Amino acid sequence: MCSPEIMVRVADVSRRNFLKQTAALGVAAGAVHLGAFGSLAQNATPVATPVSGPATFSFGPFTQVTDLTHVWGPDFPVFAGATSAVFENLATVDSGGYYNNLLTYEEHTGTHMDAPAHFDADGLTADLLPIANFFAPLVVINIAARAETDPDAQGTPDDITAWEATNGPIPAGSFVALYSGWESRLSAPATFVNLDDAGVQHYPGWHGEAAALLVNERDIVGAGVDTLSLDYGPSADFISHLTFLPGGKYGIENLANLGTIPALGASIIVGGPKHIAASGGPTRAYAVT
Amino acid sequence: MCSPEIMVRVADVSRRNFLKQTAALGVAAGAVHLGAFGSLAQNATPVATPVSGPATFSFGPFTQVTDLTHVWGPDFPVFAGATSAVFENLATVDSGGYYNNLLTYEEHTGTHMDAPAHFDADGLTADLLPIANFFAPLVVINIAARAETDPDAQGTPDDITAWEATNGPIPAGSFVALYSGWESRLSAPATFVNLDDAGVQHYPGWHGEAAALLVNERDIVGAGVDTLSLDYGPSADFISHLTFLPGGKYGIENLANLGTIPALGASIIVGGPKHIAASGGPTRAYAVT
Repeated sequence: MCSPEIMVRVADVSRRNFLKQTAALGVAAGAVHLGAFGSLAQNATPVATPVSGPATFSFGPFTQVTDLTHVWGPDFPVFAGATSAVFENLATVDSGGYYNNLLTYEEHTGTHMDAPAHFDADGLTADLLPIANFFAPLVVINIAARAETDPDAQGTPDDITAWEATNGPIPAGSFVALYSGWESRLSAPATFVNLDDAGVQHYPGWHGEAAALLVNERDIVGAGVDTLSLDYGPSADFISHLTFLPGGKYGIENLANLGTIPALGASIIVGGPKHIAASGGPTRAYAVT
Repeated sequence: MCSPEIMVRVADVSRRNFLKQTAALGVAAGAVHLGAFGSLAQNATPVATPVSGPATFSFGPFTQVTDLTHVWGPDFPVFAGATSAVFENLATVDSGGYYNNLLTYEEHTGTHMDAPAHFDADGLTADLLPIANFFAPLVVINIAARAETDPDAQGTPDDITAWEATNGPIPAGSFVALYSGWESRLSAPATFVNLDDAGVQHYPGWHGEAAALLVNERDIVGAGVDTLSLDYGPSADFISHLTFLPGGKYGIENLANLGTIPALGASIIVGGPKHIAASGGPTRAYAVT
């Protein structure tokens, strides 16, 4: 167990800096920040990745790693209205000498990242996020007892201040995860989406006021949930998405195994997606202590 | 800089253990190890991921991280005969309130993992690989000078023994990467695949005898290249794939930035794909020192 500190903080990227960064990558800025994908697909320019200099920080040492990532695929539940992944086998070792599949899926499937660009036309896409933000102290706020009886339970400012009363201030540069115990429902996927008769989803998420507290009054790099959405199921206004992401923070949804992670003292390592102009995508995340 | 040691080694998984592990995941064993994808897609069982216990090791501390991952997409070069990725924009912030894309690609695209199952019907798929093997000492063997004049340059047993003469024995549990400098060609993708008039690819890779040396006479978790294939371009027999993968090692192809990593002293963190029954897939990899 350790309490790492990120020594060099990468400031939130202003629109001006974003455009500079995008230009430095040789990518047409407008095409990326507007998510106009067609023009990118026809543009041979963005293939070259410049050599990246290292980010400097102090991290570790560690003695344990826990996988925060679910196995996902065509049967993994998706946000109501989204399309499930489709996997097509192209070859097997027995039939073709090697085994290979064609994957088709919406970016927001499985344990996945929401990049700022997912809800902010001026926000960074996942491929452009600073990697220093992918190595962070991991704070786990546990609302599982409440979620057991209330599928619409939300992580509130009171939950944050109660956590801090026990554990001290949220460490600078933290990734803050909300644990609701929801993954126990993955054995019956329909109960994970949990639609009512009117087609409204019911599962826990971050309250908008908690998102505002974390973005405006704490120093975080991102926020996570073990459910399908940063916002709780019935949300009609996506207020938590609209607070975290335009606030320059990334999200991770459908996190696994948070119930085994200490409230304070672990760190997260985020293997985020790096396809071009990513609004997000499947992400490998580890907790290390 | 540091020389981490993985304290707990995960032994290569025998077929018997593989079937046990697969059964423990609630996945039909035959369906996975044969790569028979259709039956999985119709099977609601594999959704639930069991709570994973942590893996125990000693890793770090670190002060720098370098991204070993290329930005990839429809324009990123693919192995001759494979199909390029297709990205379709589904919504933008301006048009729909949020930005989201549909991705379609073969698993072996971009900076990506080859799981043992890619060339071994009894091998582990990427989603089942032990995560302890994703945190490893990183050895970089540099053949860039030779590759500059010979596009068919291979990493040979002599390159390995020359590396060891300078740096000492390859540390136990290492990931061994071959650096050829090939990524400079990504600005002109056709030169990265480098087909000759007969349609044969020309780029560097591991010599089969080097693969055999690493698998049989050293203790490695995996091997990497900065080109499209573990085998050099003209290979007709895929001998290096057929040595590393059935040997229980994973591969990573199209690695970035290896030229900035010391020959010895860095470690790799591998954010491998975790979709079900993965033969491999896009992978986020970091070098930490």
